[in-house]
Amino acid sequence: MDAYRDLENIFRRIGALGDAEGVLHWDMSVIMPLGGADARAEQLAALKLTNHELLTAPRMADLLDQAEAVPPSDDWQAANLREMRRRWRHATAIEAGLVEALSRASSRCEMIWRDARPDGDFAAVSGALGEVLDLVRDKAACKAEAFGVLPYEALLDQYEPGIRVTDIDHLFDDLAAFLPGFLHNVMEFQARDSGPEALVGPFDVGSQRQLGIDLMSHVGFDFDHGRLDVSLHPFCGGVPDDVRITTRYNEDDFAHSLMGVLHETGHAMYERGLPEAWRLQPVGQARGMAMHESQSLLIEMQVCRGQEFLSFAAPLMRRAFGADGSAWSHENLYRLYTSVRPDFIRVDADEVTYPAHIILRYRLERALIDGDLTIADLPSAWNDAMGELLGLTPPSDREGCLQDIHWYDGAFGYFPTYTMGALAAAQIFAAADKQDGEIKPAIRRGDFAPLMRWLRANIHGQASIAGTDDILHGATGEPLGTRAFKAHLQSRYLDRST
Amino acid sequence: MDAYRDLENIFRRIGALGDAEGVLHWDMSVIMPLGGADARAEQLAALKLTNHELLTAPRMADLLDQAEAVPPSDDWQAANLREMRRRWRHATAIEAGLVEALSRASSRCEMIWRDARPDGDFAAVSGALGEVLDLVRDKAACKAEAFGVLPYEALLDQYEPGIRVTDIDHLFDDLAAFLPGFLHNVMEFQARDSGPEALVGPFDVGSQRQLGIDLMSHVGFDFDHGRLDVSLHPFCGGVPDDVRITTRYNEDDFAHSLMGVLHETGHAMYERGLPEAWRLQPVGQARGMAMHESQSLLIEMQVCRGQEFLSFAAPLMRRAFGADGSAWSHENLYRLYTSVRPDFIRVDADEVTYPAHIILRYRLERALIDGDLTIADLPSAWNDAMGELLGLTPPSDREGCLQDIHWYDGAFGYFPTYTMGALAAAQIFAAADKQDGEIKPAIRRGDFAPLMRWLRANIHGQASIAGTDDILHGATGEPLGTRAFKAHLQSRYLDRST
Repeated sequence: MDAYRDLENIFRRIGALGDAEGVLHWDMSVIMPLGGADARAEQLAALKLTNHELLTAPRMADLLDQAEAVPPSDDWQAANLREMRRRWRHATAIEAGLVEALSRASSRCEMIWRDARPDGDFAAVSGALGEVLDLVRDKAACKAEAFGVLPYEALLDQYEPGIRVTDIDHLFDDLAAFLPGFLHNVMEFQARDSGPEALVGPFDVGSQRQLGIDLMSHVGFDFDHGRLDVSLHPFCGGVPDDVRITTRYNEDDFAHSLMGVLHETGHAMYERGLPEAWRLQPVGQARGMAMHESQSLLIEMQVCRGQEFLSFAAPLMRRAFGADGSAWSHENLYRLYTSVRPDFIRVDADEVTYPAHIILRYRLERALIDGDLTIADLPSAWNDAMGELLGLTPPSDREGCLQDIHWYDGAFGYFPTYTMGALAAAQIFAAADKQDGEIKPAIRRGDFAPLMRWLRANIHGQASIAGTDDILHGATGEPLGTRAFKAHLQSRYLDRST
Repeated sequence: MDAYRDLENIFRRIGALGDAEGVLHWDMSVIMPLGGADARAEQLAALKLTNHELLTAPRMADLLDQAEAVPPSDDWQAANLREMRRRWRHATAIEAGLVEALSRASSRCEMIWRDARPDGDFAAVSGALGEVLDLVRDKAACKAEAFGVLPYEALLDQYEPGIRVTDIDHLFDDLAAFLPGFLHNVMEFQARDSGPEALVGPFDVGSQRQLGIDLMSHVGFDFDHGRLDVSLHPFCGGVPDDVRITTRYNEDDFAHSLMGVLHETGHAMYERGLPEAWRLQPVGQARGMAMHESQSLLIEMQVCRGQEFLSFAAPLMRRAFGADGSAWSHENLYRLYTSVRPDFIRVDADEVTYPAHIILRYRLERALIDGDLTIADLPSAWNDAMGELLGLTPPSDREGCLQDIHWYDGAFGYFPTYTMGALAAAQIFAAADKQDGEIKPAIRRGDFAPLMRWLRANIHGQASIAGTDDILHGATGEPLGTRAFKAHLQSRYLDRST
């Protein structure tokens, strides 16, 4: 057990330095003045390089071999060792210099993107993005060779361990076959009447923030262990004991921020629910980004846009803005928050059109990584795909290929996890509802405790004890599929009475 | 030069990780929810341990020996090498385990102190402080043996390189002989009339903040490279390109915050003025805490409580609070901001009584380190010394030994630098005024550019190219002494007409 204990100590340090990175990244997006960008890039690069060196130190191979020779009998320790090996494989597949160069290029590119995006100025950031892509392709090539997978799969594996393009194609092809017809039916269904009444602002930002805080508390967010702040691109950051979510406010539309806040709260509850005994150890981390997204979409899409929650929240919304009238009935709010409309912007998309945004990005990033698409051709390729998938042409790159932070921050292979998460969210919520009949009635009273109890036992507390499909199987009785998601869409968008 | 270049690369990483620590420490004091404390302590400990290991890695001794064998001919490189050796000596004098334990104990103790201080509950924090002290004494003993100095001197050396207790005693004995009689004279002088008119609040916190920002901008603070926030104990943190100062507001007394903001702005301008070419290298850092404090006291005490600045600032203050009347004349403001009154709280002390606060702490921390005073006896020893030095008895430990963060954060040997800084500030400002007659007239117009030009050339831009006394000698023609400070006090408090 000595080798395993040594590994736990080393990974505890790696975990703590990784947490430091998380807080610095949050600060960069929320707090930091622009003039601090170069210094911050140095800090993040130094942290990444240090963790890379810790992970790839010569003795690590021996320690892992020794520990695996007499594997721990405890399930969690055994899983921890398996996750350590996984991380080591990722780290040893690439050189330290490449890690540092990629960190530096990504920090720089992200900062340039912040300015370029509001101006729709793709040319301003294309050089920096090109540098990032070159380095990401180098990384993908090294890892692909080491793992015996495709370069793009090697990138996917960073976010969703073990996933193959055939798995994704299987799920996405099924959706791609189902959704156009379904969308057509939903649009027809919606067109049968004049649609929901709009809510008319302005909605005071302070009131929006307070309503967000109130509803976060109902979900179970603990402000002694977290914060709500503002950033350009909303995210969930920080660390499990200090989990920080962000939003951006729009005076004309409070629901955009509010639903985003509830979405990020779902991420936050996952982080907070990870097993305390395994903090900083690899097995104690979230399973992957598909599972992470399942938790945010479960809270936002499955629960908070649902009838039960909206019947509870409608009076709180009216009170927050001193509003009244038929537009503020929970029936109208439900129609508003489940209305479907093809649009340019992924983060504004409804759950029916969202998969099209992901399929677009999946295709384009595969092409970029495979060398079949250049950065120079990205804007037109984006616009072509948007026309094909949703029949829309973005008015500028701001509504096109500049809208998401991911690629500019070096994250290729991440996008598919959004739609995998949507599938998992539907599957998990259906199983939870079936197993505990108290969950939905409690939500109708604003009480998320039964749901959170179930999630902690079946998902959050499982952390990385097993693979995504195994955890899903344990919780829902089956691996990830499209059945529950399609049933959910059918029920919400076509079978409803209001 | 290869060994020297290798060292530069290693120290660049050490500098970047140290900067990361700086930002995380700022976050802990300004942003972090209490529940994040344990995780943050882990992060800071991991960073400190990592830097300790980088600095004490086996090859460092060889690299330093090799680089010193063919010393760089460039003055800055040679000084950089000297500072590298100095850091290495500090780091190799103690074990990695002690570094980590001290970091963890200090983080924990500081968090407990945050709760104990408002309650005046010394008992709540005495155990944690005892743990910190034991570890600091271990550190002092190891370093004392390695450097051939007294244990307390080994601690001083961390903040003010090369300083000996005989140096401090020489300066402090001189002040201790001068100040009681001088204070008596000032109190008599002040008693000749009914004193300045008080300003009556409340003073809106938002207006206080805006006034602070305006005056910071006049001093030269660049908000693209820094921030102003709120924390319990005001400080200047962050990094040179993203320098973050904090304050706390009091609705009944805006001057407390405002003068504190200007004080921290002095620190910030020093950090911002450090030579860009030497960022992250040891020679590019501030010379020591005495020099650092000289820059804050130069701005706050020498300049901003002076006639020239107040004649410029008085109309801005009136406008900020919509105030008027004789109390707001710059003559009355000058009398208010230079009024002398013995009090319990160091950070509220005027510059005449401030040295007594420092002499008290200097004596007590020397006794704690030498083992002549126990933590249990600290509150009564504090109160006895306060009675002896300023004739006051603190009503509770909140106004006594709980008031300062330093010891609770593990900082012993720091306090003397405040008064050394006060001496240096007077000496530097007198020299600057003598060398550039445009400085004071410009300040009267709110223009700090001539002063900042002089400071960048003579102090800020010198960073750690030489020792404190050498830099002071170059700038002022003499090493650190008490002459200019006493002349300043005489001129400001006894020779004035208003």
